[in-house]
Amino acid sequence: MSIAKLVSREFKIENTCVKVGNVVFGDGNFPVIAGPCAVESEKQVLSIAHSVKNAGAQVFRSGAFKPRTSPYSFQGLGKQGLKLLAKVKQETGLPIATEAMDVENFDLVEEYADLVQIGTRNMQNFSLLRRAGKSKRAVLLKRGMSATLQEWLMAAEYIMQEGNENIILCERGIRTFVRHSRNTLDLSVISVVKKQSHLPVIVDPSHAAGVRDQVVPLACAATAVNADGLMIEVHNNPEQALSDGLQSLYPEQFAALMGKINSIHAVIQED
Amino acid sequence: MSIAKLVSREFKIENTCVKVGNVVFGDGNFPVIAGPCAVESEKQVLSIAHSVKNAGAQVFRSGAFKPRTSPYSFQGLGKQGLKLLAKVKQETGLPIATEAMDVENFDLVEEYADLVQIGTRNMQNFSLLRRAGKSKRAVLLKRGMSATLQEWLMAAEYIMQEGNENIILCERGIRTFVRHSRNTLDLSVISVVKKQSHLPVIVDPSHAAGVRDQVVPLACAATAVNADGLMIEVHNNPEQALSDGLQSLYPEQFAALMGKINSIHAVIQED
Amino acid sequence: MSIAKLVSREFKIENTCVKVGNVVFGDGNFPVIAGPCAVESEKQVLSIAHSVKNAGAQVFRSGAFKPRTSPYSFQGLGKQGLKLLAKVKQETGLPIATEAMDVENFDLVEEYADLVQIGTRNMQNFSLLRRAGKSKRAVLLKRGMSATLQEWLMAAEYIMQEGNENIILCERGIRTFVRHSRNTLDLSVISVVKKQSHLPVIVDPSHAAGVRDQVVPLACAATAVNADGLMIEVHNNPEQALSDGLQSLYPEQFAALMGKINSIHAVIQED
Amino acid sequence: MSIAKLVSREFKIENTCVKVGNVVFGDGNFPVIAGPCAVESEKQVLSIAHSVKNAGAQVFRSGAFKPRTSPYSFQGLGKQGLKLLAKVKQETGLPIATEAMDVENFDLVEEYADLVQIGTRNMQNFSLLRRAGKSKRAVLLKRGMSATLQEWLMAAEYIMQEGNENIILCERGIRTFVRHSRNTLDLSVISVVKKQSHLPVIVDPSHAAGVRDQVVPLACAATAVNADGLMIEVHNNPEQALSDGLQSLYPEQFAALMGKINSIHAVIQED
Repeated sequence: MSIAKLVSREFKIENTCVKVGNVVFGDGNFPVIAGPCAVESEKQVLSIAHSVKNAGAQVFRSGAFKPRTSPYSFQGLGKQGLKLLAKVKQETGLPIATEAMDVENFDLVEEYADLVQIGTRNMQNFSLLRRAGKSKRAVLLKRGMSATLQEWLMAAEYIMQEGNENIILCERGIRTFVRHSRNTLDLSVISVVKKQSHLPVIVDPSHAAGVRDQVVPLACAATAVNADGLMIEVHNNPEQALSDGLQSLYPEQFAALMGKINSIHAVIQED
Repeated sequence: MSIAKLVSREFKIENTCVKVGNVVFGDGNFPVIAGPCAVESEKQVLSIAHSVKNAGAQVFRSGAFKPRTSPYSFQGLGKQGLKLLAKVKQETGLPIATEAMDVENFDLVEEYADLVQIGTRNMQNFSLLRRAGKSKRAVLLKRGMSATLQEWLMAAEYIMQEGNENIILCERGIRTFVRHSRNTLDLSVISVVKKQSHLPVIVDPSHAAGVRDQVVPLACAATAVNADGLMIEVHNNPEQALSDGLQSLYPEQFAALMGKINSIHAVIQED
Repeated sequence: MSIAKLVSREFKIENTCVKVGNVVFGDGNFPVIAGPCAVESEKQVLSIAHSVKNAGAQVFRSGAFKPRTSPYSFQGLGKQGLKLLAKVKQETGLPIATEAMDVENFDLVEEYADLVQIGTRNMQNFSLLRRAGKSKRAVLLKRGMSATLQEWLMAAEYIMQEGNENIILCERGIRTFVRHSRNTLDLSVISVVKKQSHLPVIVDPSHAAGVRDQVVPLACAATAVNADGLMIEVHNNPEQALSDGLQSLYPEQFAALMGKINSIHAVIQED
Repeated sequence: MSIAKLVSREFKIENTCVKVGNVVFGDGNFPVIAGPCAVESEKQVLSIAHSVKNAGAQVFRSGAFKPRTSPYSFQGLGKQGLKLLAKVKQETGLPIATEAMDVENFDLVEEYADLVQIGTRNMQNFSLLRRAGKSKRAVLLKRGMSATLQEWLMAAEYIMQEGNENIILCERGIRTFVRHSRNTLDLSVISVVKKQSHLPVIVDPSHAAGVRDQVVPLACAATAVNADGLMIEVHNNPEQALSDGLQSLYPEQFAALMGKINSIHAVIQED
């Protein structure tokens, strides 16, 4: 069995802190990344960005290139979407997290993103991992839907081996027999990641849940389990969202959640 | 598909509160059940019972009849174990939670238990469920290792249909492809149970984790997800435990955890 | 980790042959057990028994005590059902396989059954396993829905430790994320069982499939994988069946299948 | 939920036959693709190619670009490997199946491959799927390790939507809780694929098994389940193989297996 080297605690004892703009992941803070699944319009992203910023989110997320199960689903606005994200950054000062789906568009995404996301379906897209490893940008590496811990860490190893150690891991739920949620959030993995690796690890409860009502309690749980941050989908008009509307929080729900998250994080940090 | 009736929210809108001795589950409190996997000796159970009580546990748990994968593993002290639990109750005042493995020994277990546990492997032992339904005791119904939510609720339905509505559900991890923990704790199920059923639901992070280091963060997560309580394995000498030693907390770990749990619960209850 | 002893190949090198009436499992033959999920009426069981016998089935299966997810589903005819099975045996000469759900009714079931089935939900009902171990009857031990190979063999160990080595193992599908079949038939387990244990192992494709159309190809596959037999649900009127109608073959489908099974088995035995 | 169009039976009632060189998949024949996991040397591929051809294999498979969990594992010989495959084709006349891992190398792979494989980890690499859709070559689309049937068909839809309908689907095992095999071969999916889609579907028992002893029975089972062909790993010196040695058959094992496969296929085709 192959064993992680560069991403392991044996290689580096102290925690790696990853900077996304001026936001730091891995130093005991608990930054929250929030925003809609996909960029749909200027009005939409600006409206959501302002409200999540006011609620305390520190990074804005949204997708311009969307990996979709069906070729007939909305695939994202592409470059135009990235430009709208630039506008969000300019207006709100929030750094931008957005997904790069392939090597072909990596240069373009990199230009606009402070944090380049590699999605769950691409966790073992090794060409993409190598490209991310050559980037100056921080990388958000989502766990594959059925990835073991070792496979996930080895995916990070592909990135780090190319020279980029600014990697944030993200648990987002695994595929199980369960049908009451879209995926099963594997919170046990957080403490094991932290034991085996020096990289920060955050949690995305939105994709695990698949439905809004489960997002809030799972976000609280993810905070309590001592992750290094969260990524949450928020939409100003979930009913009309072009993707993932069902699992997106309303802005006011998100604001209320942020209060709870901060209080729970304070309890967890008390030692 | 068969649908739960008696245990459903449609049947009863308000939460069911289940009394175990004087401890109430389901009214917004957050009682913690703690103790060793198995009764091993008088000294052991008394020592652990005093320490978990001092730390704030409200119910003592330990097994006199142990379901074990192997017929060659320690099977529990049987009746003698129950008598030691009676001594614990007498000395500490803590109500007792202990498992009934079969209809044959149910009468005996019922005599000593304030809360009769039905284990994960017995979740669809329908004779046992019916017997539990005729009991005057409260019943702790653990979720089967690969049970869907509906199957779990229908198991509770078997109990309630016989006249016993004092049922506490307990999530304890499901079987998935994951290998870094013994089972995968499914915290998403908690909010869905509460939506579909009026019964209280608690979480057992010890069996999900399988290793001590994961128990503390998962216990915090289970508190934050707004469950109705916890069940945690604690042992005064885990290295020598006859079963589940690896996942048992040291008494001092448990005490520290109780502090965090109470603070997190206070945050969750704040609305 | 506990290790199987009595059921292991280390303990006994040659294959165990289990006799059910005059039918032998484990000697290179390929007996097929067939019949409806549940005994519903005299006419029903006799009609099906004659047709499956004509098609080449060697054991008749049907349930008088039915484990059902819902307490509101048909629970079986009980003793009356067993009496109808006695009639089937008398009229057709086919030995009878039927399920014992609990220790309470084991004596009764044992009186009528040539092969006592322990169902998937009871694979770790240890009291029931011990009772089966004291029986003079052969035992059909179905694999639990999420049982590992080791847990399954250890369940057999419970039976054999009590003195009964007439155990036939039965793979019936495991619970996975898959939704196009009720369970996922794990055919890889067959060769591993045969390597690790001397006990015969058969396959139930009906419960794995959950729908009729999948049963025929899976039955052929189970024959080709070199199992020691099959168990298949057949109903004379599946649309009206009180349980498992969707996955029951029509008698003529079953007869056609038997032809294929025999030809495939002949190919497999050719070495 | 998005629904497959072009790949569905509704769109096209008759079976699609896919030609790979002169070999046809989907017309009731049962072509076997065989060869080593990776191209290692000229001597190795030629030796194996001759022996699998003699045994009746109709397509040669081997990887020049290898997707590996670890960046430290052998990654394949790249272009040099493709040239060796050209030599195999020239010497044996066998068409070549080999994997394209990314869009960057697709042009190169396409030049040498008669059948371009898209691996399990890339099943939802949508850029790669689109590129394959523009190819003149037939495409072998492996099922993702935790892909639902619908996701798999939608991946094929991405290819077909770009104009390439020469798609062969390949089941290779899914990730489950099981530990006695590397993956769990899901043979139930075959009949469902054939019902829902007009595309041919084959089975790779080698990757599902992970160990040689399980490959032979699973290959027989896959034949009996009425798939449209097989893909099997064979190595002349498995102990020294640079990858997947444990699951590779010896040439003589493969030859013996081919005899059984042909006999079983004859039985299945008898209707």
